[in-house]
Amino acid sequence: MKKVDLNCDLGESFGNYKLGLDEEVIKYISSANVACGFHASDPLVMQKTVSLAKEFGVCVGAHPGFPDLVGFGRRNMNVSPQEAKAFVQYQIGALDAFCKASGTKLCHVKPHGALYNMAGKDEALANAICEGIYEYNRELILLCLSGSKMIDAAKNIGLRAASEVFADRAYEDDGSLVARSKPGAVITDEDIAVSRVVEMVKKGSVRSINGNTVEIKADSICLHGDGIKAVEFAKRIRVELQNNDVEIVSLNELI
Amino acid sequence: MKKVDLNCDLGESFGNYKLGLDEEVIKYISSANVACGFHASDPLVMQKTVSLAKEFGVCVGAHPGFPDLVGFGRRNMNVSPQEAKAFVQYQIGALDAFCKASGTKLCHVKPHGALYNMAGKDEALANAICEGIYEYNRELILLCLSGSKMIDAAKNIGLRAASEVFADRAYEDDGSLVARSKPGAVITDEDIAVSRVVEMVKKGSVRSINGNTVEIKADSICLHGDGIKAVEFAKRIRVELQNNDVEIVSLNELI
Amino acid sequence: MKKVDLNCDLGESFGNYKLGLDEEVIKYISSANVACGFHASDPLVMQKTVSLAKEFGVCVGAHPGFPDLVGFGRRNMNVSPQEAKAFVQYQIGALDAFCKASGTKLCHVKPHGALYNMAGKDEALANAICEGIYEYNRELILLCLSGSKMIDAAKNIGLRAASEVFADRAYEDDGSLVARSKPGAVITDEDIAVSRVVEMVKKGSVRSINGNTVEIKADSICLHGDGIKAVEFAKRIRVELQNNDVEIVSLNELI
Amino acid sequence: MKKVDLNCDLGESFGNYKLGLDEEVIKYISSANVACGFHASDPLVMQKTVSLAKEFGVCVGAHPGFPDLVGFGRRNMNVSPQEAKAFVQYQIGALDAFCKASGTKLCHVKPHGALYNMAGKDEALANAICEGIYEYNRELILLCLSGSKMIDAAKNIGLRAASEVFADRAYEDDGSLVARSKPGAVITDEDIAVSRVVEMVKKGSVRSINGNTVEIKADSICLHGDGIKAVEFAKRIRVELQNNDVEIVSLNELI
Repeated sequence: MKKVDLNCDLGESFGNYKLGLDEEVIKYISSANVACGFHASDPLVMQKTVSLAKEFGVCVGAHPGFPDLVGFGRRNMNVSPQEAKAFVQYQIGALDAFCKASGTKLCHVKPHGALYNMAGKDEALANAICEGIYEYNRELILLCLSGSKMIDAAKNIGLRAASEVFADRAYEDDGSLVARSKPGAVITDEDIAVSRVVEMVKKGSVRSINGNTVEIKADSICLHGDGIKAVEFAKRIRVELQNNDVEIVSLNELI
Repeated sequence: MKKVDLNCDLGESFGNYKLGLDEEVIKYISSANVACGFHASDPLVMQKTVSLAKEFGVCVGAHPGFPDLVGFGRRNMNVSPQEAKAFVQYQIGALDAFCKASGTKLCHVKPHGALYNMAGKDEALANAICEGIYEYNRELILLCLSGSKMIDAAKNIGLRAASEVFADRAYEDDGSLVARSKPGAVITDEDIAVSRVVEMVKKGSVRSINGNTVEIKADSICLHGDGIKAVEFAKRIRVELQNNDVEIVSLNELI
Repeated sequence: MKKVDLNCDLGESFGNYKLGLDEEVIKYISSANVACGFHASDPLVMQKTVSLAKEFGVCVGAHPGFPDLVGFGRRNMNVSPQEAKAFVQYQIGALDAFCKASGTKLCHVKPHGALYNMAGKDEALANAICEGIYEYNRELILLCLSGSKMIDAAKNIGLRAASEVFADRAYEDDGSLVARSKPGAVITDEDIAVSRVVEMVKKGSVRSINGNTVEIKADSICLHGDGIKAVEFAKRIRVELQNNDVEIVSLNELI
Repeated sequence: MKKVDLNCDLGESFGNYKLGLDEEVIKYISSANVACGFHASDPLVMQKTVSLAKEFGVCVGAHPGFPDLVGFGRRNMNVSPQEAKAFVQYQIGALDAFCKASGTKLCHVKPHGALYNMAGKDEALANAICEGIYEYNRELILLCLSGSKMIDAAKNIGLRAASEVFADRAYEDDGSLVARSKPGAVITDEDIAVSRVVEMVKKGSVRSINGNTVEIKADSICLHGDGIKAVEFAKRIRVELQNNDVEIVSLNELI
């Protein structure tokens, strides 16, 4: 029986600002990527999010980002690998504090936003981040884009790596994501999105934007909780996967 | 043979801003309170400071403060006990990441500035902070003002507590510090400061501002590294204590 | 014919975080207090909010707060009067930049949250803030709590002052707000709230929590846009005031 | 008689952190670029710096940067032109508040660090920033790198522009700065640096790194105040220019 993890970014609220339907989407996922206070979140939100994940039996991962709250960590910043490593270690440790305090185990790390994108293509950055994770706790799993430099870097250093895929994004022939600026980059038809996800998980392949069949590794599906529609879609993905004999398991059981 | 710890706040630089003669004062202390990014410091500075402490065999402690960089954590902020606890856990975890990554053990926690002062007098705040430390790692030692609510809170919850005294401050009859606004609050004569420190450590008492002998617990002396004069004084304190048959040991050996 | 201003805090979104139904509540108010980036908002939000106010012919005011984004400026901070003055001048200037750039006139200043509350009771803080406003532009109107130290300070220094009242809050016999911690502090019955507002505006008095009639100056009513219910209430207040022959005018016309 | 402005970045301290010998270098310059709180400085430092400039009769300019305090605004950030414009307007307004409050006139704007470098090469960014300045106050002078896109953008929109040159940097044949990564990019011999400055100001040309004579516009020389040596060099440049019959004037008199 095929297995897959369903992950979602959680705990992105900040102070007086509420973001995301965490209490809803948590029902449908197996792993939560929890923001760590640099691009989003604050200590109270982190504490609460870890508790929520524990309550629902969802694996907790750190979701470190750039120190850019106003840009939500989505802006490329020209940091050195050494800085990126220190930023990541700081944030992992901060989140892990709430895991320890609540008796929960930190399971994985998934870089956020621009850090995710930059490190996915930049070997030096990827190596530095994976080294940072490994030095902190070599039992942690790296969760990142299927086929990215991050997956390679994790394996090279000795970290377990989980490859994630996207239900709503088109892929190039080399397995990379089609840039959002290109036509057809985002898949808006939910039926198509669902069938693509099932194919990626069960067959390990996806039809590229050019119509070719390309191999892809789908350890985890990235879902969203930033609106009612997103939560409904998360629920549907879960149900359809199960209907197709795919078991939803957390990263820790999978990798 | 009497024993005492010498502690100093370290790692208070931030980005392009350099503060403190860390590389100098580290030679004379046994415990370093390392800023954690809220009132001072940043991930790279924290990493570097932990390495420095490791190199000199100095115990590393977390020095959590209020999220007030522009005020250097010295301004009272009206936070709830729950927030204070979350702030402290976040910062301890963040610093501990660099300890783990460099194979160093986090030894103690000393709140900074306004958080130190407020929690020293406010039982609810003191309890929340000590609970936060205990939940994270019950092996950590709390370092705080001799005779403060924090020391009581630590003992009540089951944390080891170390009482710190100041060489350059006058004491009231009840063992509390004379407020800086009062005349005579700060002791500027170094000879007097030194002899008071020796007395506090060896006899467990100090002469109050009113001329009375009051009991005081001196597990650790708070030194400073914010200037050449401060470093010279740290060196002198160390030498004079040793000349008076006091052994300088880290908190971990002492408590 | 009696006149009154209706004010509301606007532009409290920040980066990726959306807060408040600005586009809705703007229809019912005459003055907007626009956050300036310390407790809420960012440059793009400020620019957009000033444009929105201009489009609806609503007067723009600066809404400076403490530098405490995670606490939304609602936490008391122990700042010196000199710091408070500099914080206020910085924020007024920043907002005024967007007014100048869009050809709109900055009309008033209303301190936010904890700064509003603290300065309302602390003469030194009140004087420093009013001095800061006066030095920047003596044509600006100070908008603050009826009967507060801020109103006195504004008058003493030569600033025009507008007194604001709250529809949903009970008053003490001395015209101050009943602390939120006391029972009966918040008025939840909308009919009662409306009739109180009409009385405050038309008669210049309000029934205190002790049942006494106390004089109150109601130049402006503070409304809210933080939810559909709040917006509906703002609309109702506007309509009921007009039905009671009260004209809604901006602060600039009123004072 | 040839005229030139001498500019220096000032007011880069932040809270408890002191940076730069402002009180020394102010004696030798005619224009001060004052940090505005994004990459450095805070409201109290800005207030104090404006007062210092006023006392010494030095023209005040805004020195807006990226919102990146830990990176001192030196890291490229992927902001949109619209964001850059709003960032610049916010910071200009904030600084201008202290100018107005102290009865000083804001004279010019010089972008800082990575914003300076990026906008010097990116036409869309350059146009957006110059538009932002123009909308705020079309009397302001733009100060930026000689031959950069910023100078073109300022002229196109109708702003006065002042071209700055560097004493310690080598130039390419096209008048651009030699990248710091290339050998010979930085001129360390002070005698050579001085003679180059005199030539740039008096002849409007400089010898490029390839040995060719290239035209360069030297309205202003960029000096530094970040150390005793830098201040001594600023003093020497001033004296040598005067000895070579060059008059030191502020941007406002020059352009």
